[in-house]
Amino acid sequence: MSFAGILGRDFVGALGFPTPQSSSVPPGFLPTDSQSPFLHDMHGIHQGELVNIGVLGATGTVGQRFIALLESHPYFVVHALGASARSAGKAYSKAVNWKQTTPIPASVRDLPVHACEPEHFRECVVVFSGLDADVAGDIEAAFRAADLAVFSNAKSYRRDPHVPLIVPLVNTSHLSIIPQQRSLHTPPLRKGFIVTNANCSTTGVVIPLAALERAFGPVESCLITTMQAVSGAGYPGVPSLDIFDNIVPYIPGEEEKMEWETLKILGGIGESDAGAQAFDMHAGTPLRISASCTRVPVIEGHTETVSVRFARRPPPSPQQVREALLAYTPEAQTLGCPSAPRHAIYVHEEDDRPQPRLDRNYQQGAGVSVGRVRQCRVLDVKFVVLVNNVNIGAATSSIINAEVAIAKGVITL
Amino acid sequence: MSFAGILGRDFVGALGFPTPQSSSVPPGFLPTDSQSPFLHDMHGIHQGELVNIGVLGATGTVGQRFIALLESHPYFVVHALGASARSAGKAYSKAVNWKQTTPIPASVRDLPVHACEPEHFRECVVVFSGLDADVAGDIEAAFRAADLAVFSNAKSYRRDPHVPLIVPLVNTSHLSIIPQQRSLHTPPLRKGFIVTNANCSTTGVVIPLAALERAFGPVESCLITTMQAVSGAGYPGVPSLDIFDNIVPYIPGEEEKMEWETLKILGGIGESDAGAQAFDMHAGTPLRISASCTRVPVIEGHTETVSVRFARRPPPSPQQVREALLAYTPEAQTLGCPSAPRHAIYVHEEDDRPQPRLDRNYQQGAGVSVGRVRQCRVLDVKFVVLVNNVNIGAATSSIINAEVAIAKGVITL
Amino acid sequence: MSFAGILGRDFVGALGFPTPQSSSVPPGFLPTDSQSPFLHDMHGIHQGELVNIGVLGATGTVGQRFIALLESHPYFVVHALGASARSAGKAYSKAVNWKQTTPIPASVRDLPVHACEPEHFRECVVVFSGLDADVAGDIEAAFRAADLAVFSNAKSYRRDPHVPLIVPLVNTSHLSIIPQQRSLHTPPLRKGFIVTNANCSTTGVVIPLAALERAFGPVESCLITTMQAVSGAGYPGVPSLDIFDNIVPYIPGEEEKMEWETLKILGGIGESDAGAQAFDMHAGTPLRISASCTRVPVIEGHTETVSVRFARRPPPSPQQVREALLAYTPEAQTLGCPSAPRHAIYVHEEDDRPQPRLDRNYQQGAGVSVGRVRQCRVLDVKFVVLVNNVNIGAATSSIINAEVAIAKGVITL
Amino acid sequence: MSFAGILGRDFVGALGFPTPQSSSVPPGFLPTDSQSPFLHDMHGIHQGELVNIGVLGATGTVGQRFIALLESHPYFVVHALGASARSAGKAYSKAVNWKQTTPIPASVRDLPVHACEPEHFRECVVVFSGLDADVAGDIEAAFRAADLAVFSNAKSYRRDPHVPLIVPLVNTSHLSIIPQQRSLHTPPLRKGFIVTNANCSTTGVVIPLAALERAFGPVESCLITTMQAVSGAGYPGVPSLDIFDNIVPYIPGEEEKMEWETLKILGGIGESDAGAQAFDMHAGTPLRISASCTRVPVIEGHTETVSVRFARRPPPSPQQVREALLAYTPEAQTLGCPSAPRHAIYVHEEDDRPQPRLDRNYQQGAGVSVGRVRQCRVLDVKFVVLVNNVNIGAATSSIINAEVAIAKGVITL
Repeated sequence: MSFAGILGRDFVGALGFPTPQSSSVPPGFLPTDSQSPFLHDMHGIHQGELVNIGVLGATGTVGQRFIALLESHPYFVVHALGASARSAGKAYSKAVNWKQTTPIPASVRDLPVHACEPEHFRECVVVFSGLDADVAGDIEAAFRAADLAVFSNAKSYRRDPHVPLIVPLVNTSHLSIIPQQRSLHTPPLRKGFIVTNANCSTTGVVIPLAALERAFGPVESCLITTMQAVSGAGYPGVPSLDIFDNIVPYIPGEEEKMEWETLKILGGIGESDAGAQAFDMHAGTPLRISASCTRVPVIEGHTETVSVRFARRPPPSPQQVREALLAYTPEAQTLGCPSAPRHAIYVHEEDDRPQPRLDRNYQQGAGVSVGRVRQCRVLDVKFVVLVNNVNIGAATSSIINAEVAIAKGVITL
Repeated sequence: MSFAGILGRDFVGALGFPTPQSSSVPPGFLPTDSQSPFLHDMHGIHQGELVNIGVLGATGTVGQRFIALLESHPYFVVHALGASARSAGKAYSKAVNWKQTTPIPASVRDLPVHACEPEHFRECVVVFSGLDADVAGDIEAAFRAADLAVFSNAKSYRRDPHVPLIVPLVNTSHLSIIPQQRSLHTPPLRKGFIVTNANCSTTGVVIPLAALERAFGPVESCLITTMQAVSGAGYPGVPSLDIFDNIVPYIPGEEEKMEWETLKILGGIGESDAGAQAFDMHAGTPLRISASCTRVPVIEGHTETVSVRFARRPPPSPQQVREALLAYTPEAQTLGCPSAPRHAIYVHEEDDRPQPRLDRNYQQGAGVSVGRVRQCRVLDVKFVVLVNNVNIGAATSSIINAEVAIAKGVITL
Repeated sequence: MSFAGILGRDFVGALGFPTPQSSSVPPGFLPTDSQSPFLHDMHGIHQGELVNIGVLGATGTVGQRFIALLESHPYFVVHALGASARSAGKAYSKAVNWKQTTPIPASVRDLPVHACEPEHFRECVVVFSGLDADVAGDIEAAFRAADLAVFSNAKSYRRDPHVPLIVPLVNTSHLSIIPQQRSLHTPPLRKGFIVTNANCSTTGVVIPLAALERAFGPVESCLITTMQAVSGAGYPGVPSLDIFDNIVPYIPGEEEKMEWETLKILGGIGESDAGAQAFDMHAGTPLRISASCTRVPVIEGHTETVSVRFARRPPPSPQQVREALLAYTPEAQTLGCPSAPRHAIYVHEEDDRPQPRLDRNYQQGAGVSVGRVRQCRVLDVKFVVLVNNVNIGAATSSIINAEVAIAKGVITL
Repeated sequence: MSFAGILGRDFVGALGFPTPQSSSVPPGFLPTDSQSPFLHDMHGIHQGELVNIGVLGATGTVGQRFIALLESHPYFVVHALGASARSAGKAYSKAVNWKQTTPIPASVRDLPVHACEPEHFRECVVVFSGLDADVAGDIEAAFRAADLAVFSNAKSYRRDPHVPLIVPLVNTSHLSIIPQQRSLHTPPLRKGFIVTNANCSTTGVVIPLAALERAFGPVESCLITTMQAVSGAGYPGVPSLDIFDNIVPYIPGEEEKMEWETLKILGGIGESDAGAQAFDMHAGTPLRISASCTRVPVIEGHTETVSVRFARRPPPSPQQVREALLAYTPEAQTLGCPSAPRHAIYVHEEDDRPQPRLDRNYQQGAGVSVGRVRQCRVLDVKFVVLVNNVNIGAATSSIINAEVAIAKGVITL
């Protein structure tokens, strides 16, 4: 019997797989058969098997989103919750100021909140971290040292030369550096490691760039303007007085992150003379990124205008770009990861899409939407990207990364 | 085998019935068993039976919501679509400027749009009307004359002395006037009739008022201020320049509608000497309603502050009011109507709820939320209501009304 | 030569006095002569005389508004600035995160910021306090003890039985309690005292209520719903995630403040057997106030729906109410206070006014706007009020209170 | 006696000239003397002389802004109003749905509205057109043929080879083509002509580009993303349902306009062999513009991110760019045009500016604000521009254009 059969339509629908709703095929798309094949072949896990997970920073914005997203996951079960000392000891429903538009899952409502110490998470196979950057560094290191697999949304280890920075629809191949990361410990770790996911705005742009590089070879330069939603700043985050009827054309550190992270994600892994692995930062074919980041009065969903110049001359046409984006299938899909979107990149044909309010929840926010693919008079091609900053731009990325790590045997159950 | 078994979890979840998510019981609520009993006993329809329905005004705001809501309905199937002459002849996806946050259902995408003429709807058992008031009167009359059952969201027939004005969580007993309505035609109609549902703001307030009258006897006066979302005005509706960073303290005709409709809905049906039935407009115990209606910069969900004075002295305490609201079970639930909410009235304990953005989609917007039940220094008790103006305040009301009409045999299949 | 002649058109215009703009008379208003008479007779101050003032909490929201408003004041000159220890020692432009839509006044930009200690304010005749409630109590007491005249926007002393709570368009007569307040000190103060102004929402409703009581005698009950702007919560104040596309139906403590402050403001001052003066809290004719306070996504300007029942039977008609509101002239106008509005109450004839975005800056926000005066089916009459929460609801109230205190000789120069 | 002396502080302040407020010099600016020199030398008009003007499309968004802006103009007097047949014959206050935040000027309130026919405008020296594009073409042609000087905000004649497209802070030299435009009529016109101003987004970008080209020679390419306010779409314009909590990444025709208009404005005027003058469209040094235009939930003020590549190698540094922007003085200032801003380009030093809500009304919206000047990794330099789309982006442009035409004698009084 197939896995899909066990799960039933409900779960499938909850994660953006073929239900009557999400299967509606937009004009210009090839019809897909309604039974997604990869559900029948979900690598690394047996039917009915469950995997305990923990959530660090469980009361925060990203922590809440982890919990909401995992409510109907086929095998991840929220087992332990960590938050600040102030919350420790309380039932989750008492500790959290829940701000999601769905109620607290019944299975989590009464779980106790612990301090973020590894001892409370010993029964967890995976730990998702939604911690703030100011505390994430030490806590995540302690969890790794306790031989736990940490999937972090924080920025603390993104620049670490032994920690992969993985956008799950792009560079899951970078998990190959985990053995080296473990070996650096004394004694070497057996199971523990840290994997980070990228900044939400970076995530939005590297997914289409990865598709374009796969189809057309290296991108040479890329100019981006972001219009980022307030939820990207967490809670309380952006004061309403700062952003009502307004735009703030600056987000501290954001442009540098985009310009740097993109190189690590889209680059490969090379080997030094001494045999150590190292991220090559796209060095073989230098890639110049220039980002202008702004905050806009939108709740969820970052919109980005992107102009691209390819190394290849003549460059691909807008129509070829559109087709390459559509055709892009990341490893997370091939491996049957249940939280991966059906369309990694949804390509809109209408001139006025994507729009954050209408499109951010498509496929539970697990893919990106691209529209307005057209010629750029200065570079080669330009388009608009929409990325759900809280889902694929944050919690969903960590979740799929963990699914991939299981599917590829990096985590053994 | 139970109906729930056939439907599977997916449908149930889609309509707000017990899924892991919607079953999460808030503090202060009695636990409910996860298998809602009335699903096993859905009156008036056999397992697996399907019912063709038509949608008039299918390209408009309310029409779109009908179509989105019916996507996963257990027995209603969208069969025919009507819109203005401009749209007639096109495929639905070409005719509509779809503004919902879920894609057009695949089963509707390619349906042809017809002119709003009965001949195209002959195979429909039920016709839902989301027509604008300026055209609804004539078209709905023609559909009734063609012996079709019309459930209308338009205001055209709300004041008609033979047309029931039904809020499905309040006065489904008013369906009893349908035989009289049919008999007025020459020759008398066998199947055709019109049922209207109420204005969205009226709907929000009559549901808790009905609960209070059931528990404590007549309400004597009620003072309401509404803060109404822009979606209540349809599309294009309210210009952004009028409502950004603003409140408009006036909605033409709205206060009169609230003050009048409430009397028809909460009143009973009496009999004249000649044996004709007539709505009594709550005449036995006069009820004074005073409403102040405002438009606020919110997309969906009307918030209303309500102060109530009871006839009974001493009046019930806030705690008694809270319990009465919680305990309220309308006929639509007893009859097992699939689109009825599990909680007709959700009572919030937190001081700062309900809030439209967080609470409007609870139970797919099919119930109302009440919070801040407390003493009023001028009348007796005051509270805050949130009603999803597009769901229970519009399309969902029509749908449940039709489900009730089937369950009670007013419509025979 | 007249005072107006000296000041020139610029100052006059800046404060809402007759310029071509503000003199435009709406339909239904009696024409007013363009030379406002009371400018010629500004009590308590000689032509050209200047008055040094200090601002406490100068870097906060209300402090910034004091500074912006006083930029073109005819006799108040910003002389000393106080803020938290963190800001002390810096130039104002370095200490403040200026959020006004006009630049920092040149004359204030380089003023040093001091700690909030009386020694730095010895040359000030008047001290305006925009301090947060958590520190205002002690600091304002220290300033009073140092024989300084403190006009406070904080709530700390509003309930003090010897401190007047003055809405300058309503109860400036309450300044008569100042001698008693001074006499309680040992030794009695010669100049020092504290005057508070009211909560912003209270201010909006007591101005029309005062007009109605003056014209028609006691009001018996009053039911209010407020829709309050985010600027009322200060900075950072309301997180954008809480209020975008949303309404929060609760503001801690606000309803109690409105219900209580109204009684102190609209009441009189009685005398005990021992000869002490005491606020009578409207006790002679009990007044019941019931308020429901909500936060709405508006930047500035609180909108309030108000229903009123008069003691007098039959009650006045809506037209009589409209005329009484229009005719209302508070003492601050009679005394020629330069920051007093020309129309204490502007009465709109259009159905859809007042609106915060369009009307909040009329007369620099120094008056209130009333619209939609009509019958109430439950009480007698209902209407809509708009009050600029940051101007007459906060800083402007303190400023006019000080002007009145000078005009009446409570402060001697 | 100087002109400033006659006008008094009020007028000067109203137009952004040195008042205590607008003279406040931001950090990093050279102090300017508070008496702006060019006020003493306002070309083309004598002290006290008044000029009758007419407004076409007077009830529309741009028409209202013309009227609000001209309220305190030193010599332009609103004399005749034109609108659609529906409004003709009414008093202005009855015909208009006034949406400005200041009241209708008293001097305009009772003016009659005429049909847009030249006979009603015979006493006008200048006619400002805020007509919609669908009617502007014929009406403006008729007014020109009636020998009237038309300054139009409509797009109808922007591409006309004999009509100058003038951004008044950039290319007032293009007025030199007016004699040729007049000569094409039979018989040649003595006074009539049409001058258009640019699209609001174009206006924002050409002002800094003009400053850069003046300082550093030709710009080679320019990549722009706009975030445009809803007021740019007129009234009713953008439905709130389309733009609340949303971004629409498409504005029909806007990108083409920006890419084309920029060439006409920044280009020069050449001469054909036959001696006719022609706009050279920047042909000598080709300029490539690529724009991505989006609509954002902001009421007023377009924000634009701009990246520029210069022809000159090496390119100027960000600091040199900043200085060049600051130093830029357009002819409209040199000529003493009263509506010209004091700073054509205000350069912000703070990282998080310009912001539309805080900066759009600086200098009554007559200049542009630039911030975040920094290196671009793909082109040379990037920065953020804010332009008030309704003022310098529309009505103010027409007004300054007319002032320049008077100052240069193109219009003779």
